Amino acid sequence: MGGNVFGTIFTVTTFGESHGPACGAVVDGCPAGLPLTLEDIARELRRRRPGGGGPSTTRFEADEPEVLSGIFEGKTLGTPIAIIIRNTSGRSADYEELRDAYRPGHADWTWEAKYGLRDYRGGGRSSGRETAGRVAAGAVAKVFLGRYGINIQSWTSEAAGIEVPGPGDGGFDLAEAETNPLRVPHREKAREIAEKIEALRREGDSAGGTVSCKVTGLPPGLGEPVFGKLDARIAEAMLSLGAAKGIEFGAGFSAAYGRGSELNDCPIPAGEGSGAVPPGHFRSLPPGVPALAYGSNNAGGVLGGISTGMPLEFKTAFKPVPSIGQNQKTVGRDGKIRDLCIRGRHDVCIAPRAGPVVEAMTALVLADLLLMSLPGACFKLDP
Amino acid sequence: MGGNVFGTIFTVTTFGESHGPACGAVVDGCPAGLPLTLEDIARELRRRRPGGGGPSTTRFEADEPEVLSGIFEGKTLGTPIAIIIRNTSGRSADYEELRDAYRPGHADWTWEAKYGLRDYRGGGRSSGRETAGRVAAGAVAKVFLGRYGINIQSWTSEAAGIEVPGPGDGGFDLAEAETNPLRVPHREKAREIAEKIEALRREGDSAGGTVSCKVTGLPPGLGEPVFGKLDARIAEAMLSLGAAKGIEFGAGFSAAYGRGSELNDCPIPAGEGSGAVPPGHFRSLPPGVPALAYGSNNAGGVLGGISTGMPLEFKTAFKPVPSIGQNQKTVGRDGKIRDLCIRGRHDVCIAPRAGPVVEAMTALVLADLLLMSLPGACFKLDP
Amino acid sequence: MGGNVFGTIFTVTTFGESHGPACGAVVDGCPAGLPLTLEDIARELRRRRPGGGGPSTTRFEADEPEVLSGIFEGKTLGTPIAIIIRNTSGRSADYEELRDAYRPGHADWTWEAKYGLRDYRGGGRSSGRETAGRVAAGAVAKVFLGRYGINIQSWTSEAAGIEVPGPGDGGFDLAEAETNPLRVPHREKAREIAEKIEALRREGDSAGGTVSCKVTGLPPGLGEPVFGKLDARIAEAMLSLGAAKGIEFGAGFSAAYGRGSELNDCPIPAGEGSGAVPPGHFRSLPPGVPALAYGSNNAGGVLGGISTGMPLEFKTAFKPVPSIGQNQKTVGRDGKIRDLCIRGRHDVCIAPRAGPVVEAMTALVLADLLLMSLPGACFKLDP
Amino acid sequence: MGGNVFGTIFTVTTFGESHGPACGAVVDGCPAGLPLTLEDIARELRRRRPGGGGPSTTRFEADEPEVLSGIFEGKTLGTPIAIIIRNTSGRSADYEELRDAYRPGHADWTWEAKYGLRDYRGGGRSSGRETAGRVAAGAVAKVFLGRYGINIQSWTSEAAGIEVPGPGDGGFDLAEAETNPLRVPHREKAREIAEKIEALRREGDSAGGTVSCKVTGLPPGLGEPVFGKLDARIAEAMLSLGAAKGIEFGAGFSAAYGRGSELNDCPIPAGEGSGAVPPGHFRSLPPGVPALAYGSNNAGGVLGGISTGMPLEFKTAFKPVPSIGQNQKTVGRDGKIRDLCIRGRHDVCIAPRAGPVVEAMTALVLADLLLMSLPGACFKLDP
Repeated sequence: MGGNVFGTIFTVTTFGESHGPACGAVVDGCPAGLPLTLEDIARELRRRRPGGGGPSTTRFEADEPEVLSGIFEGKTLGTPIAIIIRNTSGRSADYEELRDAYRPGHADWTWEAKYGLRDYRGGGRSSGRETAGRVAAGAVAKVFLGRYGINIQSWTSEAAGIEVPGPGDGGFDLAEAETNPLRVPHREKAREIAEKIEALRREGDSAGGTVSCKVTGLPPGLGEPVFGKLDARIAEAMLSLGAAKGIEFGAGFSAAYGRGSELNDCPIPAGEGSGAVPPGHFRSLPPGVPALAYGSNNAGGVLGGISTGMPLEFKTAFKPVPSIGQNQKTVGRDGKIRDLCIRGRHDVCIAPRAGPVVEAMTALVLADLLLMSLPGACFKLDP
Repeated sequence: MGGNVFGTIFTVTTFGESHGPACGAVVDGCPAGLPLTLEDIARELRRRRPGGGGPSTTRFEADEPEVLSGIFEGKTLGTPIAIIIRNTSGRSADYEELRDAYRPGHADWTWEAKYGLRDYRGGGRSSGRETAGRVAAGAVAKVFLGRYGINIQSWTSEAAGIEVPGPGDGGFDLAEAETNPLRVPHREKAREIAEKIEALRREGDSAGGTVSCKVTGLPPGLGEPVFGKLDARIAEAMLSLGAAKGIEFGAGFSAAYGRGSELNDCPIPAGEGSGAVPPGHFRSLPPGVPALAYGSNNAGGVLGGISTGMPLEFKTAFKPVPSIGQNQKTVGRDGKIRDLCIRGRHDVCIAPRAGPVVEAMTALVLADLLLMSLPGACFKLDP
Repeated sequence: MGGNVFGTIFTVTTFGESHGPACGAVVDGCPAGLPLTLEDIARELRRRRPGGGGPSTTRFEADEPEVLSGIFEGKTLGTPIAIIIRNTSGRSADYEELRDAYRPGHADWTWEAKYGLRDYRGGGRSSGRETAGRVAAGAVAKVFLGRYGINIQSWTSEAAGIEVPGPGDGGFDLAEAETNPLRVPHREKAREIAEKIEALRREGDSAGGTVSCKVTGLPPGLGEPVFGKLDARIAEAMLSLGAAKGIEFGAGFSAAYGRGSELNDCPIPAGEGSGAVPPGHFRSLPPGVPALAYGSNNAGGVLGGISTGMPLEFKTAFKPVPSIGQNQKTVGRDGKIRDLCIRGRHDVCIAPRAGPVVEAMTALVLADLLLMSLPGACFKLDP
Repeated sequence: MGGNVFGTIFTVTTFGESHGPACGAVVDGCPAGLPLTLEDIARELRRRRPGGGGPSTTRFEADEPEVLSGIFEGKTLGTPIAIIIRNTSGRSADYEELRDAYRPGHADWTWEAKYGLRDYRGGGRSSGRETAGRVAAGAVAKVFLGRYGINIQSWTSEAAGIEVPGPGDGGFDLAEAETNPLRVPHREKAREIAEKIEALRREGDSAGGTVSCKVTGLPPGLGEPVFGKLDARIAEAMLSLGAAKGIEFGAGFSAAYGRGSELNDCPIPAGEGSGAVPPGHFRSLPPGVPALAYGSNNAGGVLGGISTGMPLEFKTAFKPVPSIGQNQKTVGRDGKIRDLCIRGRHDVCIAPRAGPVVEAMTALVLADLLLMSLPGACFKLDP
C-alpha cells in the first residue's frame, strides 16, 4: 500500500484526488540555499495545464500553486517544500453514472478489487489530474538541475499514428514544440496531427502517441550499476505514468534486431564528440581517468546503468485515452453486462500533455541520482 | 551509491564480481515456514548457466549454490537466506589487455568515471555473472509464488533478427522453450536462429533479441496506483538488466499507434474470460465488488498500475552482446585512440540466457508486491 | 538530507516552519475503508495545542486542520491523506534579535552549520510547532489501531524534579492526566508541579521532565527481530522529538543494575497473566504455538524486538526548554561573544505537551509494524 | 518482515543463525577506492569474540572472516562487500531441551508467536552470535570514518552493579579498557567487577551493565533535523541490540530533573572549546557561518538532531543475560508449566562484549549520515 512517495534522497510525496479539495506535493531533500520562486513552479504547471487552448483537451483549471513551507526569503531552507493546487473545475455531476459502472481501459475495477471502494468522480487518484503534484515537484528538481547546466526537453514524437521527424531530420524544431499545444516539434506535422485528432474527436474516438525526451548536460557517473541503474530508475518513473505502455532507450527495440558491430558506441577522445558534456563540466573525473566521448549514441547516454556524458535519450509510448465518446460494453457493480457512454471533458490524445510530466519525472530521478553521486562514489579525503 | 538492494518487504541484496571469490544473494523478508530446498535454487541456476550446451555461450561454471542461513529442517525461518555461488572458471589472463582499454558498448569507462577504479577482469560487477545472485534469489521468490498458484514463464521471442511466432500462432510451444538452449518456443525457428547465431559467431559479430514473459495466476489488486505501479516496478526490474534497452506491456508501442475503440479492454462477467484468474482464487475480493474478467488483454494484465487478474504480459528488448571478435576502435587509459580485439568466451546473443533472469526479477517484484497486500511473517496458504 | 518521511508501509511526510504559512502532514499507506472524520484529527491537535489553559505555555493557535485528500464519504480511500494546519499566531517581530545570534541549547547554529541559512523566526522547522504535523498524522494511526483494540496512553511521570507515582502506586489516576494541563495522573502532584513551574517561570528558568507511555491490546508478534526491533523503532521515534535525551523500556536503566534471576519475565499459561492480550485477540497464533502470558513485565512488552502481548511500556526523558528568560552568553553571527535575553512566549516544561506527540509517534510506529504483519490494502477488522 | 537491512546510503544486510553454517554481512554503498584489508575486519571480530580469555564468557569461536567480493587489489570497488564468518563451535546437543520450552527473558516464544517455528539451537537468529555480522560491517565503516579522523570508543561504564568512574574522574584510563576482557577503563574497578561476576557465575546468576560510547572528530552538520535526527538514528541502532533496555545522550535522564539555566550549552568562539572539532576540519562550514564551540556538552554532541562538533556521547543500558544456571519456571510447547534449567556456555554479563557491537552500530550510522551530508545539504555550484 501507499506508493505515493518517490525517491531516496531527493524525494517527493504527492497527494490529491481529481475532484477532492486539492492536489499537491511535498518535496523533501532539496538542498538549502537554492533560489526558488513561485513562478518557477507555476510556469511548469501552465505547461501541463488542461485547456491550454489546443485540440487535445477541453477541461480548464487555473492551477495556481501555493507554497506552504520550505522557502524563506527566496531560497530553499533544506526543509520540505509543500505545494498545493486547489481543484476548482470539478463537475462531479458528470460522473454520477460511473458510480456503478467500470469504464473499459480504466482502473475503476482494479481499484475496487484492491481497495474495496473508490472516488468515482473523474477517476479520483487515478486521474491525470494526479500528475499536477508531480509537475509541481518536478519544477523544483528542474531548477536544481538547471543550476548544474542539466537541461531536460521533451516533445511529441508521434500522435494519432503520425510520426514526427526526429532531431537531424528536416523540419525538426524544438522551439516549435513549446509553441503549439500538441508539443510537436515540426510545424507541418503539428497541423496534420491536429486535424487527425479533431477528426477522432468527432468520431468519439481517441489516439495514442509517443513522447521523446532528451537530457543534455548530464555528467558521466550518474546511476548505480546494478538495481539502481539510471535507465531502470527512468523506466520506473515513466511506467508510473497512467497511460504509459512502454519505454526504450537510445536505439531501443531496434537494437534487439541489430548487430554488435553496428550498435556498439565506440569511445573517442573528448572534444571530438558532439553532444558529450565537456571535460571541464561540474563533476570532475576521478584522478587518472581520461575524459572521452562516444562516436555514436545508440546506448542513449547510459552504459551499464551509468550515464556516459552523452545526452540521455528515451521514448515513452502512451496508449489512447480510454475515455471515448462511443458506446461500450462493460460490467456494472451488480456484475451484469451493461452499455456505457462516457460523458465529460476528455483528451483525445494524452501524449502532448504527458510531455511536461515526462520532464518532471525525469527531473525527479536525476536530482535524486545527482545527490547520491555528488558526495562521491569515489573516496576522497577532502570532499 | 550502492543500489545492490532491491525490494521493500521481500528484499534481495546481491554481491559478487565476475572473477572474485564468489557471487550470491541475501533474501530478506521471505515468510517463515515455506518449504524450500537447495535443489529449488540449484535448478534455476542451471537454467541460466553458461555452457548449457547450446550455441549462445561457451563459458562453463558449475554454479553450485550453498545456503548459509535462513533454512532449518527444510523450511524457511523468516530470517535472511544467504546463498553463495563460488566462481570457479575465471581465466583472468584473458582480460589483461582490458586493464588499460575501454571496451565499446561496455560499462568500462562509465564505471571508472564514477568510481575511479574497476575490476577489469570480465567486467567485474558489470558482468552478466552478476545475475547469478538474482537468479538464486528469484528461485526463492518463485517457490513462494508457486504456493499461490502464480506461474512465471519466459521465452525468446526474437533473436538475431528472426521473429518467433507468439502464443496463438502456429507452432508456438512453451515446452520447447525449456528444451532448446536458445529458449525458443518453436522447433523450426529455434533451428533457424541457431544457424544464424553460429554464422554471426564465425563473423566475430553478435546479435540482439527480445524476451517475452507471461505470468498467470496473479490475483487482481497487486501494485500501488501511483509511483509503485505494477508495471513501473517490473519496468525498473527489467531495465536493471545489463543489456536491456526497452520494455513494453501488452499492446505496448503498437498501442501508441492505435485507437481507444480498438484497444480498450472491456470488462466481461467472470467465467466468460479466458485467462483471468477464477473468482475463487486465493485473494478474495472486498465485499460488494463483483468478480469480472476482460474480453481482451491489450493492457497486458495491468490497469492503473494494479493487476487485473488477466495474465501479466511484457516483452524486454536486449541489445547485441557488445563483446565482439572484430577489431574495434576505442580509447585507452592514456586517453589515446587504439585498436581493440576482445578475446575470451562470450555469448553471441544474450536473450536466451536472459530469460531465467527476467523470470527471477519478475518473481522478486511480485513476491514483494504480494507481501504488501497479504499477511505476514508466518506463511499460510490461505490468508 | 531530507528526513521528513517516516515509516515503511504506513508512512508520514511532515512539513512546515513555525512561522511559515502552514504546517501539516501527508499520511500514505493507510488502508482504505477506515471510517475517519475531521474531528478525529482535530481532537488530537487540541490535546497538544499550546495555550491549553495550563501553566506550561502561553502561545495560542487555533490549530484547525483541513483535510485535502484521501477521505471520501467518511472513509479513507487508500490514497494519501493530506492535512494542513495554518499558522495564525506567529509574531515574527519577537524573533528579530535572533537573526544574528545563536540561542544556547537550540539548533540555531547546528542548522546553519548544515544548511548555511535558517528561518530564524521561532526556530523554523526546529520549533515544537513542527510536531503539529506528527500529531495530525498520529491521529489517523490511532483511529486505525483503535479498530484493533490497541490503545495508547501517555502521562507526565516527572516534571520540574517532582516524581509522580506510577501505576499501582497510591493516587495514580490516568483520567486525571486528561483533565489537568500538565497531564499529571495524580491530583496532588499536579498541583505541586504547577506551583513549581510557576516559580521557575518567575525566575526566568525552565525544567525537564519525563513522559511515560503504555500501550495495551498489542498482539504478540509485532516488530522485526534484528534491526527493525519494536523497541528500536520506538526509540528512534522518541529520540526524533526535539528535546528528548533518553528512553528506557520496562525496567530500563535499573535493569543494568539487577540480576537475571530477578528480572527474567517467566512465561505463565495464558489467562493467568494480568495485562496480556487474551488468546482470542485479533491476530491468531500460528498453529501449534500455545497462548501464554508473562508473570512480570520487566521487559516492557518486548522480547528480542518482538511484542510479547504484555503492555508495551517505556519512558522518555525531556531536557528543560532551552528558551529561558535569563541573560545568557552566546556567540553572534559575527563570531563574537554577546549577551542574549530571549523574548517571546515559551513553555517552561515541555513534558506535558510532549505527551500527545509521544502517543502520535508511537501510533505511527505501531500502525506501520501492524501493516507489515497484517493484510491489506483494504481494511477489515478480521484479517 | 525482514528487518535485516540497515541504512540508506551506506547499508548493511546481515544474516546467519547461531548454529547454522555461517553468519555474515553485505556492506553496500561504501565508496570505491578506500584501502581495506582482511585484517581490518578480523581485528574487530577478535574484539567482540567470545572466549577472549576473560571472565564474562566461555564459548570459543575462531571468527575468521572471508571476504567474497567488493575488494580488489587492496581497495574497495564501490560494489557490495560480502563477508562471511563460519560457525565452528556450535554444540547443538546442549539445546535439545529447548526445542519444547520457552526460556524466560528470551525471544523463544515471541519468535514462535510471529513466525510459527524457530531454530531453537542457541537462539538461532536471536543469538548474540548475530552481532558478528554487524561487527564485520562496522569494521568497514570504522575504516571509512577513520580516514576523516572520526574515532569511536566504547567502554564498560557499569557492570554487576559496580559503577566505573568516567572521563575526568580519577583512574579513568581508556587504554585499560582495551586490555582487560571486561573492557573496564579502570584497573581497580575491573578487578572488582571480575570478582563480582565470578561470584554470580557460581550462583548461576547473571548481571546487567551499561556501555558508554564517545565519538570524536565528528564535524558539525550530521543528522537530519526531523525524523532522521542523529540521536534518533543512534537510539534505533542501540535498541536494535538484543539486550538493550535504554539509552541516554549527554546529561540524559538527569536532564529531565534539571533546569535550563544549568543545562544549556552556551556557544563560545571556536578554539576556546575543548573537545570541539577544529574549524579547519574536513567539512568546511557554509559561507558566512562562524566556527564555534560550546562551553559544556550536556547535549552530548547533538542539538536539534544535528551534530554540534563536540564529542557525541551516549550510554546504553543492557539487562542481565537471561540464560541463568538456576532453576526457573516456564511454559512448554504443550502450554503447561514446567521447570527449566539452562545448560550450555553463557556470558554472565553482556556489557563487555557489547562494547565492540555498540561501536560497530555507531560506525554504521555515522558512515551513512556522513554520505548523506557530504554532498551538500547546502547548495553549491561546484561540489
